[in-house]
This record gives sequence, C-alpha cells and structure tokens, in this order.
Amino acid sequence: MQKIIENLTAQKQRHIDELFEFLRIPSISDLEEYKDDCKKAALWLMNNIKTAGFDNARLYETAGHPIVYAEWLNAGNDKPTVLVYGHYDVQPVDPLGLWYSEPFEPVIKDGKMWGRGTSDDKGQLFMHVKALEEIMKVDGKLPVNVKIIIEGEEEAGSSHLDEFIENNAELLSCDYVLISDTDWVDVGLPSICYSLRGLTFAEVKITGPNSDLHSGSYGGSLDNPANVLCSMIAKMRDEYGRVTIPGFYDDVLDLDADERAGFARIPFSEEEYCKLLGIKATNGEFGYTSIERSWARPTLDINGMTSGFQGKGSKTIIPAWASAKISMRLVPYQDSDDIAKKVEEYLKKLAPPTVTVEVEILHGGNPVMVKRDGKGIQAASQALKNVFNMEPIFMREGGSIPVVGVFQSVLKADSILLGMGVPGNNIHAPNENYPLENFYEGIKVSAHFFYELAK
Amino acid sequence: MQKIIENLTAQKQRHIDELFEFLRIPSISDLEEYKDDCKKAALWLMNNIKTAGFDNARLYETAGHPIVYAEWLNAGNDKPTVLVYGHYDVQPVDPLGLWYSEPFEPVIKDGKMWGRGTSDDKGQLFMHVKALEEIMKVDGKLPVNVKIIIEGEEEAGSSHLDEFIENNAELLSCDYVLISDTDWVDVGLPSICYSLRGLTFAEVKITGPNSDLHSGSYGGSLDNPANVLCSMIAKMRDEYGRVTIPGFYDDVLDLDADERAGFARIPFSEEEYCKLLGIKATNGEFGYTSIERSWARPTLDINGMTSGFQGKGSKTIIPAWASAKISMRLVPYQDSDDIAKKVEEYLKKLAPPTVTVEVEILHGGNPVMVKRDGKGIQAASQALKNVFNMEPIFMREGGSIPVVGVFQSVLKADSILLGMGVPGNNIHAPNENYPLENFYEGIKVSAHFFYELAK
Repeated sequence: MQKIIENLTAQKQRHIDELFEFLRIPSISDLEEYKDDCKKAALWLMNNIKTAGFDNARLYETAGHPIVYAEWLNAGNDKPTVLVYGHYDVQPVDPLGLWYSEPFEPVIKDGKMWGRGTSDDKGQLFMHVKALEEIMKVDGKLPVNVKIIIEGEEEAGSSHLDEFIENNAELLSCDYVLISDTDWVDVGLPSICYSLRGLTFAEVKITGPNSDLHSGSYGGSLDNPANVLCSMIAKMRDEYGRVTIPGFYDDVLDLDADERAGFARIPFSEEEYCKLLGIKATNGEFGYTSIERSWARPTLDINGMTSGFQGKGSKTIIPAWASAKISMRLVPYQDSDDIAKKVEEYLKKLAPPTVTVEVEILHGGNPVMVKRDGKGIQAASQALKNVFNMEPIFMREGGSIPVVGVFQSVLKADSILLGMGVPGNNIHAPNENYPLENFYEGIKVSAHFFYELAK
Repeated sequence: MQKIIENLTAQKQRHIDELFEFLRIPSISDLEEYKDDCKKAALWLMNNIKTAGFDNARLYETAGHPIVYAEWLNAGNDKPTVLVYGHYDVQPVDPLGLWYSEPFEPVIKDGKMWGRGTSDDKGQLFMHVKALEEIMKVDGKLPVNVKIIIEGEEEAGSSHLDEFIENNAELLSCDYVLISDTDWVDVGLPSICYSLRGLTFAEVKITGPNSDLHSGSYGGSLDNPANVLCSMIAKMRDEYGRVTIPGFYDDVLDLDADERAGFARIPFSEEEYCKLLGIKATNGEFGYTSIERSWARPTLDINGMTSGFQGKGSKTIIPAWASAKISMRLVPYQDSDDIAKKVEEYLKKLAPPTVTVEVEILHGGNPVMVKRDGKGIQAASQALKNVFNMEPIFMREGGSIPVVGVFQSVLKADSILLGMGVPGNNIHAPNENYPLENFYEGIKVSAHFFYELAK
C-alpha cells in the first residue's frame, strides 16, 4: 500500500492533466447540440480506462447517449466483485454570465478546481479510475474483481440506464456498487451515506360543478372543490406533524439509539439553517431533530396546487375543480407501491360524497438502507479512516438516487455511497468546483477501499 | 288608467319597431371598435326620450361612454321622485357561430324576441320609456316626478358611473330608484327582488422559504406554505358549514318566518338544480334550504388557488409560497369593510409563526335590503298584481348589483328591482331573448307602478 500511495503522489500532475482533458469536453446530455460531445467524452473515458489496464472496454449504444463499460475479473471467485458507477455527462451551464471562469476551461484557484463536472461527476468518478490504474501498475493486479459502468444521461430527463441494467443483469452482476456522487455532511467531515429516502408522488383532482359558477348566484348552496381540497389536505397530517394515512408508519424503521447519537454529534446550527432557507423557524414531526426529520422520517408535502382564477385581481367564481400534487418521502422499509395504494384509498375516503375525486400516481421509488455493519460500508469507513485519520460520519440523505434502488432491486447489490463532494461545490449551478484535496485524497481512499474489501 | 292601457295596446307595433331600431345599434361597450356605436345608441335613446316628452334630455360625456339623462319634474313637491336606471350597452356576441339569427338583427319567433340586448337591458329599460310616453300622451303629465339615467358601461370592465353619481348627487337626488335588469324566479312567476348579497374579496399569500426547495433534502424539517394555507382555509368553516371568522355573524339579519314561508312556496327541485350544475348533491350551512343558502346566508368560497409546480408530471419541490383568493358573500346588515377587517385579522391569527402572511382586500360591496313593507316595493307589488292578477313572489338575489349600493349610499334611495327577465333569456350568451309578453305586460306594469306610487 505504501508503494501505491507513493506512486499516487508522484502522479498527481498527470492525474489532474488527464482530468482537465476530460473536463474540457462539454458533454451536456440534456441539450441536443452537445450530442457529439457526449459521444466524444464517452470514447475518451473508455480509452482512458482501457489504458488503465481494464479488459473489454467498450461503449454500449442506447436510444440516448452511450454507456461506458469495462471489467477486470481476475481476482478470483473467492474475491468480491465491485461495480463502480458514475456518469460522464454534465449539467447545462446557463446562466453563463455568472461564471468567474469558463465552465469548460478548468482552472485551479484557492485550493479548488473550478469548472463544469469537476464535482458532478467527472472529478469524482475519475478518482476510482486513477486509483485502480495505479494499483494495477504497482501490483500487476487488483485485490477484488471490478466492473465499471459510466452512463451519459444522469443529468438528462429520461435515462436509458434502468432498461440497460434490467437487460444486462448478468453482465453487471456484483456484490457491491461503489458510487461517488454525493457530498460529505460538511467540509472537513468525511462521511458515508447509508440510507436514502424513497418517494411516492400523487396528484389528486376534486371536481364539483360542470363549469365555473358565479359565486354570487350559487355560493353557499354547493361544496366548493377548492375548499373541499383544502379540508382534505389539512386532514392528512395531525397537529404533531404526523401523517394520518392509515398504515403509513407500519413499515417505518425507527431510528436506533446509535444513529440518533451519531446525528446529534454532527455540527448543525438551527440558526444557520433557518438563515440559509430564509425561514423564521424549523418545524416538523414532534419528537425529532431537524436532521432526523429531513433524513430519516417520512413526510407529506404539497408540491403544487391549482384551482380557479389565478390572475391579477378578483373574479367571483366557484371553481369547477381543484388539484394538488402531493408527494411523500419514504424511509426504510416503507414500500412505494404500498404507500401509493394507501394514499389513494385515503384520499378517496376523505373526499365528501358531493364531489368527484381522481387520484393519479405519477412517480415512485423505494427508500434505500445499507446495513452499517456490512462489509462494504465497513471497508469504506476504514478507507476514510486510513486517509483522514478520523472516524467518518455515518449520514443519511433526504433525497433519492433512483439508480441505487434499481441496483438493489435488479442486481440485489448494496450501494456504497462514498461521495467526496462538499456543500458549496455549486453542482447544477455556475462556478462548480471541487477541492483539490478531496480529489487527491479521494484517489487514496478509493485505493484503500479495494484493499480493505479484499481482506 | 283604462285609457292608457288601451293606448298601449294600440301602440304595440310601434313600440316593437322602435325597440328593434334601438337593438340594431351594436353598442358593445367593452370593445374599442364599437365606440361610435355606443355613442350612436346613446344619441338615439336621448332623442327617443326627448320625443316621449322629457325635459333636459342630454348626454353627459365620461372618460368612457356617455350617460343619457332626462327629467320631468312637474308633478309637484308633494309627489315622490323616481330615478329610472338602465344601461344601453350590451355584451359582446362571441361565439357568433352559435347564434340562430343575427345578434343585431332582432327577430320574433316562438313568442319571444331574439337578439343582443333584448333582455339585458335595452328591452327592459325601454318598457319604462314607452310607459312614461303613453302616460304623458294621455294625461299630459306624469303622476310622479321622474329622472332617467341610462349608462353605457354596465357590461364594460370599469364603469365611470359611480364617479358620476358621486359628482352629481343633487341632479340625481330622488326617493326611489327603479331598475329593470333582473329576472323573475321563473317563467310565469312575477317577482320583486328586495335584497342583494354584498361582497368582501381578499387574497392571502403565505410565504415560507426564500425559494422553492428540494423536497427530498429539506422535506419534513420546515412548514410547507401550501400545506399551511390548506390548514388555514380548512379552519375557516366548521363542520356545519358555518364561517368561523370571529364576529362574522354579528350583524347578520336572520330570515324571518314570513320570508322562509315565502321561499318555501317557490317551485324548486333539488334534482333539477343538481342536474343543471352537474353536481351530485347540494350542501351548505346546516339548517337552511338551497334557496336560503344562496340568497340570504353569508358564504366563504375559494375563488382561486396557486402554489408551486402546476405543470404536467412531477416536480419534487417545497414551494416558497402559496396563495388563495377568498371571497365572502355578505347579507344584510353585514358591512363589507368590517368583514374585511375581521377576515384579515383572522387570517393573521391562523397563520403559524413559521411563515409570513400577507392579506390584501381586492374588492368589496355592501349587501342591500329594501323593506318589503316600504311604499316603493308595495307599489311595484300592486302593479304586478294589477297586470298579472296574482301575488308576486318576493325574492332575493345571491349576487350583487354594485350600482344599487352606490344609489343607497350616495343618494340614500332604495332601489326597486322590478326586473321582468326570466331564466333562459341567455343574457351574456348566444341567442339572447326576451318574451314578447313580458315586454308588453312590462310596459303596463311600469305605468301601473307610477300611478300606484303617486297614491
């Protein structure tokens, strides 16, 4: 290991030079005019991975942008197989005027590299490629079997990756998926994410009269769909911030004492948080902290609401209908389909007999939980400890990473979320950046991880 | 009176001919390209009124369309003064393809006259002009003092009439205002309207975070403005359909036993009503019938609601803000300004301390109540009885006629709503019509009214 670390240090400049070459390709997946650049980025990466010593490096064409694949499977059957996942595509760069330097001409300044893709996700996925390359150079082999899959549509509306995974389950079969596409809880606090929330997204529409009615002539004699909808939504949570859908909490895994103690140690200022969001105070489910509420408790939020006259001024109508988009964030081991059924039933029960209620489930995804005492997470934890000389933070994420759910359901493989980004990296915004230290140390963490896992 | 009625019968054809000439002028007030036609209609009407024997017939120019004015004040100081109000402007005629005959080429068919303005309001205001003309011809004088004011902007967005009334209170001073611009409760049921509901129209905006937030990263840790708004609105009415704003019912005049008995005798089918509106069932304040709820009880209705993502599909945000337009129909003797103050206070009290609440009062108007035993109403009632040989129905209206409130507040004069329209007249729609009988008999009712009032 000593040798590898020495080698990595010696190669720092080359690693950065190569990454910058990669970053200069404007592989914006969601804009048609960058289609060729996406292909170019895929080819460049495939060649770089091939040069690193991988076998079967190739592009798989999809209806969208190609998927880069490669493998090295000579560690033996007794060694685990790790699937490294990442994406070579990047977000658009508008508004261009807010960038301090060219988005596709990366620069180094103030200890960070600046440019589109530095953090999300070219910079992070490249750490693993370089770690694996140096291990092969020094050892002539890898301590575990490794497959690499890098997609080009993570930032585009509709990815073809799910379909590819389903159709190529054997090719991709593995014991662990390694993903570096998330953030530490804060700068200087190496973190491992072991749980993501899931989602059930519904739309409800309440219809009353067959057209908007004059509120003078008819007001008072019939139920108003907008008032009805408000009453229904108000009933979906109680005064303790708990969701009232029957059976909603049946499968919720309670936070254990260890987790709560761990979260409590994370530096977190309610005051700073409120200032950041521009709110007067936090509020949520009774008995939980803000971190627990946003990482580990299920929610029910209105995402949008529409009814009647929305222009300037007054129009005295009783609207014919009212609708709301209602989404629930789910936690392990709630099931998205089960919650969809329950919310639909509940909305139909809440609607009075005077109106028509329609419920549509628009979207869903299951929550993810990787056991903290599992071998993969423990190897990642040890790798971080080896490099940073401190206990990493075990964190959760309030959002979802849909592909993690697909890896779980199709490949039956846990994902290790070993992200090295930090808050302030401005992903999806102008002036995206990534600390140089996190890149260099991240390569070491990656190398340590593969060795730890092989132990 | 016998002589007058004989004369009216003899002049039927001329009355229709003159009205049709008036109807052929396309005086659409809300469309710029008909500005000259509005002026033409005003001039035509002024001349017709002058020919009828009125003094001081003239046009008052406004920033919009002119106001027609005339007077005959020789009945003596011991006789009451009646201000006849109407409007010579009409609604647009789109969609033209749905008309069975030309909107501005009136025709007679199936016992009705068809064309724009036949019912709203040229046909109705003209009844009074012709009645007064024949009285003058036969008697050489009128039994009461009469002023006529016919505006040209009733169907346009912003009328200049209120300002004109306020600036000319002495010119318009009177004991009663006579208005024929409303409907009977049904065909064959002569009706007098003695009360209109008022209005307070508010907009409330709830603001939470300083921008839309990712519902995954933040959901659960802060109050969602859309959920908050729904909870607030839900609390504004109780489970008996009563408005919960403190003091809301303080000034509400209870329905008296006579009124309720009268309303109960009006032919009304819940089944037909539901079919007409396309609803499954009526619903409203506990303890009242549908007629009572829409005519004589105050309401609280959402007229529009806006928050967050309203497009197709799903967007997982916590909206930064949510807003609703909330209007209350008021009944005698609620005061629009008083209710505005109360609703604003209540909304501010209902809003939790985690959000910002803004309330704007957009519009208001006081309810109207004319005493059923007053001399004006009794004269109108007797006039209907004389012509139709049956007791008229004393009805209320759920909507507002703003000018009635202005006449009340500025001129301190009660309005007699002696409308002769019927449901099915298609005002504001294609194929507007007016029963010939209501026109001819309406002229007689008008003549009787002036004599009854003079008694």
